[in-house]
Amino acid sequence: MERIDLANPVFAAYAAAACLMVLKTVAMAWATVWKMMQVKGGYRAPEDARKTPLNPAPRAGQTDPDERVERFRRIHQNDLENVPFFLAAGFLYVLTDPAHWLAQTLFYGYAASRILHFWAYATAKSHDLRATFWTIGVLIIMFMAARTLAAVWGAF
Amino acid sequence: MERIDLANPVFAAYAAAACLMVLKTVAMAWATVWKMMQVKGGYRAPEDARKTPLNPAPRAGQTDPDERVERFRRIHQNDLENVPFFLAAGFLYVLTDPAHWLAQTLFYGYAASRILHFWAYATAKSHDLRATFWTIGVLIIMFMAARTLAAVWGAF
Amino acid sequence: MERIDLANPVFAAYAAAACLMVLKTVAMAWATVWKMMQVKGGYRAPEDARKTPLNPAPRAGQTDPDERVERFRRIHQNDLENVPFFLAAGFLYVLTDPAHWLAQTLFYGYAASRILHFWAYATAKSHDLRATFWTIGVLIIMFMAARTLAAVWGAF
Repeated sequence: MERIDLANPVFAAYAAAACLMVLKTVAMAWATVWKMMQVKGGYRAPEDARKTPLNPAPRAGQTDPDERVERFRRIHQNDLENVPFFLAAGFLYVLTDPAHWLAQTLFYGYAASRILHFWAYATAKSHDLRATFWTIGVLIIMFMAARTLAAVWGAF
Repeated sequence: MERIDLANPVFAAYAAAACLMVLKTVAMAWATVWKMMQVKGGYRAPEDARKTPLNPAPRAGQTDPDERVERFRRIHQNDLENVPFFLAAGFLYVLTDPAHWLAQTLFYGYAASRILHFWAYATAKSHDLRATFWTIGVLIIMFMAARTLAAVWGAF
Repeated sequence: MERIDLANPVFAAYAAAACLMVLKTVAMAWATVWKMMQVKGGYRAPEDARKTPLNPAPRAGQTDPDERVERFRRIHQNDLENVPFFLAAGFLYVLTDPAHWLAQTLFYGYAASRILHFWAYATAKSHDLRATFWTIGVLIIMFMAARTLAAVWGAF
């Protein structure tokens, strides 16, 4: 059987987690847009303070940082720091032929850790709780990358 | 025929769009460098204000933000928020065996949306025009990720 | 032989360099965390200034930018601007069937350029030295993407 194929259950688990993480990250951009619409501010480009159909009533300070918007930008940035590396490490890890249950645990565990990280960040839970969810995700990435390196370098 | 092979026309279309997007994103870094050279400022690291062959005449304020440079940083950042997720979603979407015309439309349509987004942003067109091009690209990513999820979960 | 397989020496070289770059980028996040712990500041979210087991003695200004932390954030950001595009371009380049020695040189050369970039940035070496290492890495990405485009478009 092909490894890089949706018919391979290990790869299918990766593909599902990967697509969920792509949608999750893209959703952060929409959440930022939604917050900017709500606050009618927190914009970044000078031209965004001009009058347009989407900004019918410009006011001073629309391009100043707004914490309600910045919070979603930070969550988004955290995804940029993490998700692309999960996407790459998870893909390569599939090629080491991991046990199905282990691969599923890592892939869906990663997705769960990021959803929980989002919840803890969006609702301003304590740093320590948020850091815990982040750490789980990072350790999964590190494990998969280290396991793949070991496979390549023959140190099974 | 292999799916992950440049001889597969669907994968070849993905690979071409992916390479164009990699080059486009990397070009944003060069555009930022070019603007910093022109402005002789907008640097970020304190040591960049020191006298070196590339900075022969240091002046005060070289590490202050400069809007002409910041504009390219924002365009670059927008690529970081979008392109890696296109690269991943497009790859997985190839594995769902899409029709050639549809895959080509999505892959090259994505590339076109990002080129137009660049044009609208670099020339400070209205927020609404820029947001339109951004939205087209994001919807293509979301469609490909959702289609792959549907294929994995058997909901054809 | 399968191309996307750890038994293919060209792909194995890619996989090893890719895993090293994933671990390197993730290490930048840990370096930022370590610096924040050391400085007990440079935090970003308002809630991070609250008293918790990891922040037992809050003080004013803990969420102000701190250059010692910001330096690692900039190094991390530079990885986000570069590594994901190496991961994608390197993967596609494997499919063009490059010579083993050339592929190895590019993949491990890239990894070396990023380690040297880290060293030059973390120790505040001159901009020109840091820019040299960055340029080597970017040129490798551009070469691999251009080579893949040429293969797709038949211009061997």
